[in-house]
Amino acid sequence: MKKGLASDNYAGVLPEMLEAIAEANRLHAKSYGYDDFTEKAKQEFAKHFGSEVEVTFVFNGTGANVLGIGCATESFNSILCADTSHLYVDESTAPETFTGCRLIPLATNGEGKMEIETIRNSIIRRGDEHYPQIKVFSIAQPTEYGTVYTREELLSISKLLKEHNIIFHMDGARLFNAAISLKCSLKEMTRDIGVDILSVGGTKIGLLFGEAVVFFGNKYSQNLRYRQKQSMQLPSKMRFISAQFYRLLQDEIWVKSAAHANQMAIRLFEGVKDIQKIKISRTVQANSVFAIIPAQWNELLQDQTSFHIWNEKTNEVRWMCAFDTEEKNVDEFISAIHKLDNA
Amino acid sequence: MKKGLASDNYAGVLPEMLEAIAEANRLHAKSYGYDDFTEKAKQEFAKHFGSEVEVTFVFNGTGANVLGIGCATESFNSILCADTSHLYVDESTAPETFTGCRLIPLATNGEGKMEIETIRNSIIRRGDEHYPQIKVFSIAQPTEYGTVYTREELLSISKLLKEHNIIFHMDGARLFNAAISLKCSLKEMTRDIGVDILSVGGTKIGLLFGEAVVFFGNKYSQNLRYRQKQSMQLPSKMRFISAQFYRLLQDEIWVKSAAHANQMAIRLFEGVKDIQKIKISRTVQANSVFAIIPAQWNELLQDQTSFHIWNEKTNEVRWMCAFDTEEKNVDEFISAIHKLDNA
Amino acid sequence: MKKGLASDNYAGVLPEMLEAIAEANRLHAKSYGYDDFTEKAKQEFAKHFGSEVEVTFVFNGTGANVLGIGCATESFNSILCADTSHLYVDESTAPETFTGCRLIPLATNGEGKMEIETIRNSIIRRGDEHYPQIKVFSIAQPTEYGTVYTREELLSISKLLKEHNIIFHMDGARLFNAAISLKCSLKEMTRDIGVDILSVGGTKIGLLFGEAVVFFGNKYSQNLRYRQKQSMQLPSKMRFISAQFYRLLQDEIWVKSAAHANQMAIRLFEGVKDIQKIKISRTVQANSVFAIIPAQWNELLQDQTSFHIWNEKTNEVRWMCAFDTEEKNVDEFISAIHKLDNA
Amino acid sequence: MKKGLASDNYAGVLPEMLEAIAEANRLHAKSYGYDDFTEKAKQEFAKHFGSEVEVTFVFNGTGANVLGIGCATESFNSILCADTSHLYVDESTAPETFTGCRLIPLATNGEGKMEIETIRNSIIRRGDEHYPQIKVFSIAQPTEYGTVYTREELLSISKLLKEHNIIFHMDGARLFNAAISLKCSLKEMTRDIGVDILSVGGTKIGLLFGEAVVFFGNKYSQNLRYRQKQSMQLPSKMRFISAQFYRLLQDEIWVKSAAHANQMAIRLFEGVKDIQKIKISRTVQANSVFAIIPAQWNELLQDQTSFHIWNEKTNEVRWMCAFDTEEKNVDEFISAIHKLDNA
Repeated sequence: MKKGLASDNYAGVLPEMLEAIAEANRLHAKSYGYDDFTEKAKQEFAKHFGSEVEVTFVFNGTGANVLGIGCATESFNSILCADTSHLYVDESTAPETFTGCRLIPLATNGEGKMEIETIRNSIIRRGDEHYPQIKVFSIAQPTEYGTVYTREELLSISKLLKEHNIIFHMDGARLFNAAISLKCSLKEMTRDIGVDILSVGGTKIGLLFGEAVVFFGNKYSQNLRYRQKQSMQLPSKMRFISAQFYRLLQDEIWVKSAAHANQMAIRLFEGVKDIQKIKISRTVQANSVFAIIPAQWNELLQDQTSFHIWNEKTNEVRWMCAFDTEEKNVDEFISAIHKLDNA
Repeated sequence: MKKGLASDNYAGVLPEMLEAIAEANRLHAKSYGYDDFTEKAKQEFAKHFGSEVEVTFVFNGTGANVLGIGCATESFNSILCADTSHLYVDESTAPETFTGCRLIPLATNGEGKMEIETIRNSIIRRGDEHYPQIKVFSIAQPTEYGTVYTREELLSISKLLKEHNIIFHMDGARLFNAAISLKCSLKEMTRDIGVDILSVGGTKIGLLFGEAVVFFGNKYSQNLRYRQKQSMQLPSKMRFISAQFYRLLQDEIWVKSAAHANQMAIRLFEGVKDIQKIKISRTVQANSVFAIIPAQWNELLQDQTSFHIWNEKTNEVRWMCAFDTEEKNVDEFISAIHKLDNA
Repeated sequence: MKKGLASDNYAGVLPEMLEAIAEANRLHAKSYGYDDFTEKAKQEFAKHFGSEVEVTFVFNGTGANVLGIGCATESFNSILCADTSHLYVDESTAPETFTGCRLIPLATNGEGKMEIETIRNSIIRRGDEHYPQIKVFSIAQPTEYGTVYTREELLSISKLLKEHNIIFHMDGARLFNAAISLKCSLKEMTRDIGVDILSVGGTKIGLLFGEAVVFFGNKYSQNLRYRQKQSMQLPSKMRFISAQFYRLLQDEIWVKSAAHANQMAIRLFEGVKDIQKIKISRTVQANSVFAIIPAQWNELLQDQTSFHIWNEKTNEVRWMCAFDTEEKNVDEFISAIHKLDNA
Repeated sequence: MKKGLASDNYAGVLPEMLEAIAEANRLHAKSYGYDDFTEKAKQEFAKHFGSEVEVTFVFNGTGANVLGIGCATESFNSILCADTSHLYVDESTAPETFTGCRLIPLATNGEGKMEIETIRNSIIRRGDEHYPQIKVFSIAQPTEYGTVYTREELLSISKLLKEHNIIFHMDGARLFNAAISLKCSLKEMTRDIGVDILSVGGTKIGLLFGEAVVFFGNKYSQNLRYRQKQSMQLPSKMRFISAQFYRLLQDEIWVKSAAHANQMAIRLFEGVKDIQKIKISRTVQANSVFAIIPAQWNELLQDQTSFHIWNEKTNEVRWMCAFDTEEKNVDEFISAIHKLDNA
C-alpha cells in the first residue's frame, strides 16, 4: 500500500538500519547476545543514558514492557498505569500472563496524562494482603495521544513514587520523539528524572524490528537473562537488533528520524488548525495529530491516505507521521482537507 | 568471529533473505499480519503443506512451540516430550508460563528418539483429575541429536496418539534438514503423517529471524490471533518475516540451504569416521555430527573452529553445519583432526 | 473477643452445622466428593435452583469465584466487575493467577451498583486481538455496600449480556441475605434471571467453612473437576462441607439465619437513622449498615463493639450483622450512639 | 461406607478435634489468622519445632506444598522431586499454575526413595538461562510408599543441597507417622536436618481439615501473607484450623493417633508377611502396607474392606491404616486373606 498516516508500524525500515544488518552479517557471531555487536550497542547506551545501566534487546514493545516490569515484580503485586496506555489496552493479557500482576488503570485528563493527584489517590492499602500490592508505576512518554510529559511533571511524579517506594517504569515506544519534543537528552528525560526501568522503542523509529530494555542501576536486573529467556524474548541472533541500535545511537540517526517525524506532525497541524470544522483534540507535541473531523470526511480522506478512526463516537482520528513521511504527503493531505472544507 | 561449527544460530542470513526484506521495504504495509506479503506467504505454505492450513509467523522457536501448544491446551493439561528435547531442556519455563501445562519428559534411546513403547507407557490416568491430563505429544524432527524419525516411525506414533485422542505436535526447528534427509516433501513428513500442529524453523535455515506455526485443519487455531498477541509473539512488522518465508518456499531456497548443510555434515562424518580415537555417537542424518573425542583435543580444535561440548562427562561434542559452511572449512577441520590423531 | 459488628467472618458456626459435621463423621466416606453426603447436597441444590445444575463445594469465597470464572475463560479474556467488588479489591491477584485474565473495573454509583449504561459502554473492541476479550461479567449480590440489585435490574443486565454473548457470573457470598431481602426464591434471583455461574457463600451464613459453585446447564462445567483440583480447591474430606450445605438448604436454616441477620441490620438502622450527626450512606437492604459518623466517635464506640472504618477520608463505617447478632447487642449499640449524640 | 483401608482421607475426624472446634466457637474472633487461637497454635509449633519459625495454616495439602514452595521460588526456577511423589503425580498442575516453575521428576528406587547419586546428577546447568534454574528440592517424608528416610539419609541430602544453595522442602502430609517411625522428635527430623520449608499434614492424622506450612528462619516467609491470600489458601475463619493444631500438638494427640495407625500397619504386615502368594513390596515403616497380591483376590477382598489397587500391571495394592483403624478390622482382614490363600 502507498504511504499514509495510519501508523509508524506501517512505515518500513530506515536504510541505515538495513546497512547495519548487512554489516552484522559478514561474519559468524555468538548467539543469544554474547556477541560483539551487542557489547558495543550496550556501550552506546551507557554513553547516552549514563554508566551503570543494564541493557538488553528484545523483539517487540510488549515484550520490552512486560520483561522490564516482570523483573521488578512478584505475582501478588499490582502496576499503576494510564487507562489509555498501550500497556493497558493494546497488549492483550500479556502483562498478566507473564508477570501475574494486576494492572490498575488510572484516569487520564484530556491530554491523555495522569495527574499527580490521581496517582497519589491510587496508592492505597499498603501492606494489606487482600489487595494487590502496588509495586510499579508505568508511564508512556509520549502518551498514546502524542502528548509529552514535561520534565517538571515527571519529577513530581518521581518524587511521589520514591516516597512510597514504587518503581518508576517508562514505556518509551516513541521515546526519541519525546526527547526531540522536550529538547533534552535521553538521559535528562529518564535517568535524571528517576526512572528505574525503561523500554526504548526501535520499531517505530525505523528499525526492522527490536526494542531495548534499560535498567538504571542493577537492583532489578539480577535475573534479567533468566526472565528474558522465559518470556520468549531472547533472540538467538540478537546481534541483528544490537547492530541497528548501535547505529541508531552512534550516528544520531534517531535525532534525524524523530525530528523529521515530529516536524511533519507540526506541519500537518499548522495546515489544518484554522479549519472551523476540525477540532484539534490533543496538543501536538510529538509525531501525531489527533483531531475531531466530520464523519462524512472519513472515507473520502482515507481513499487518499490511510489513517485510524481513534474514537468512533466522537469521530476523533489519528494522523501519525513517521521517518518517511514526506512534506509532499502532508501538503497533499492538507489540500484534500481544505477541499472538503470548502465543498 | 570466524566461521565455525558451533551453531546454525551463529551463522548469519542468506543473501536471498536480505533481498526479500529489501523488497518488502519498498512500500508501506498494514501491521500485525494484515498485509499482502503475509497473505502470499500463507498461500505458499498451502502449496507446500496442503490446503486448509492455518499459518502465522512469530519471532523465535520457543515462541513457535509455545504458541502452537498453547492454542491446543488448557492449563490442567500435560505435554509429553523427549527428555532431551529443546522444548524440555532449552526453553526455560516458557512452556509452563504461557500454557500453564506440565511437561512430562520421556526417556530417549541412544539415537535421541522416543520409542513407541515408551510413549505408550506414558499414557496413563486418563480422566483422573489428580493427574495433569495428557493433551499433546511433541516430537522434534530432526531430534536434538541430528537423527531423523522415519516416516514409518512417525506413522506408528501418530496411530497411537489418535487412538488416545492426543494432539501431535512437531517441533521443526530444522524441519527442512529432515525433509532433505528423508527425501520426502514437507507435506509427506507432517500433514500426511497426522501431525496436527507444526513449528517450522526459519532462523536456523538462514532467515534473519522468524519461525512459522502451522495448524493442519482449523480445530486448534480458533483463538490463534488472541493467543499470539498474548504470548508477545505478534510482530507489528510481520511482513518482514513473511517475505522471507515466501522467498524461502517459493524459490525452493530451503532445498538448497538444507541440502548443503546436510552434505557438509556427511562430508565431515566421512572424513573422520575411520579415526579410531573418535566415536561417532549418533547416526548422522541431518546437518550435525555428534562424536566422542579425546578431551585433550577440545582446546586445540576449538582454537581453529568453534563447537560445543555437548556432554562434559563423556566429552561428546557437536559439530553443526549451516547453509554457509564451506567445503574448505570442513576439509580443514578434518585435516586438523587427522593431525591430532597422528600426533 | 466478644460479639461485635465487625464482620460475619468474626461470627462462629451455627450449631446445626456442627451437628451436620458430627453426623458426617460417623462412618468412613470416599474422598474428593465421591461420597453420599456430597451427592445428597447436590440434589438439594437441584431442588432449590432447578434441575440440570452442576454443583461443587470449595474451601472459600475467593476459591468459589475464581474456580467458577476459570472454568468459563481462556487466559486472553477479560472479566467485567464492579470497582468496589470483593473480586476486584479483596482477593489479591488470585483471579489473575488462576484464570490469567484481566479484571476490568466498572464504576459504581452511590449504592455500590453498576448501572446498565456503564456496563454497555464497557463492552468494546470485540474481536480485536490487542484487547483482552471480554468473556464474563461478574456481579456481587448483595453488593459490598449491602445493597441489593432488584430482579428488574438483573434482568436488564442479563439481556444486555446475552446480546453480546457474555457469561453472567454472580458472586453470592451473601446470596441468602439478598434472597430474603428481595422476598424471592434462590432460583428466581439466579437461574431465572439468566445467571450462568454462581458462587454461594456458606462461611458468612454460619458454616464452619465452605462455599458452593453452581453452574446452570453444563456448558462451562465440562472441565470442572480438573480445574477444581488444579486450583487447590478440591477438599479431600469434601463431605464435611457437603453435609453442612445439605442441612442448610434441606432444613431451610439459611432462611432463619439470613432473615435474622437482615432484621438486626434494619433494627440498627431504625435506631439511628434520625440522628442528625449520622448519615446513613447506603440503603440498608441486607445485613449491613453503612453510615458516616463523627470521627471522634470511632474509638469510643469500638471500645464497646468492634466494627470497620470503611473509608477513612469520609469516616464511613460498616456495621455488619450476623446470624448470632442479638437484639440486646444492637440495642446496646444504639444506646451508646445516642449517648454520644447527646453528649 | 464402613471402615476400610482405602485412605486416611476416608477416615473421619478425631473427637478431640471436634471438641477443639466447639471450644473455638464460643466467642467471636478476628478473621484471617489475626486471632488468639492462631497465635497460641503458632507458639505450640515453636515449642515443637524450635523458635524462629514462621507458621501459617491452610486448607489442604496441595495448598501447603504449593504455598511453601511458591514463597521461595521465581517463575524461571525448577523444583526437584520424586517421580512418584504426591507433588508430582497427584496435584494436577497446581504447582505450575501457582509457582510457574518446572517440576523435574527424579527416579526413585524400590523403596520409593530418591538416592543421593540421583539427586547429585540432577543438579545441572547452574546459571544457564536456557534451563529452568533449580531452586528447591522437595522430599516426602514418609514417601508415597510408606517408607521413611532415615535421619542419616536426610542429612546427607541436606549437605548436598547446602553445597549447591538449593532449598530443602519437606512434604510432611504424614509427618507424624514418620516421627513415630524414626522414634525422634518433630524437630530432629526437620529443622535439625536442615529442612527450610515444611508442610505438616493435619487432615490425614485426623483433623476435620487443615494443614500447616512451617518456615525455619524467616528468609523465605517475607511475603507469606501476600502469597497465602493470592493462592486462595487464607481461611477467613482460620481459628478453626489453628484450634485443632493447637490441641493436636499441645495434648500430644498426634503421638497417639500416629502411633496407633503405624501399629495397625505393622499388625497387618505381621499377619500376612508369611503368605507365599503375597509379596510385601515395600518395607513397612509408617501407616501403610504395599503388597503384590493375586489379582483374582481384589474383588473378594474389596467386598469386605475397601483399598486401592496402586499398580494395575503388577497388582500391587495399598492398605492404609488410620487413627480409627481397629485391631478387629485388621484381624478380620488378615483372616479373609488367609482364607483366600487356603482356598
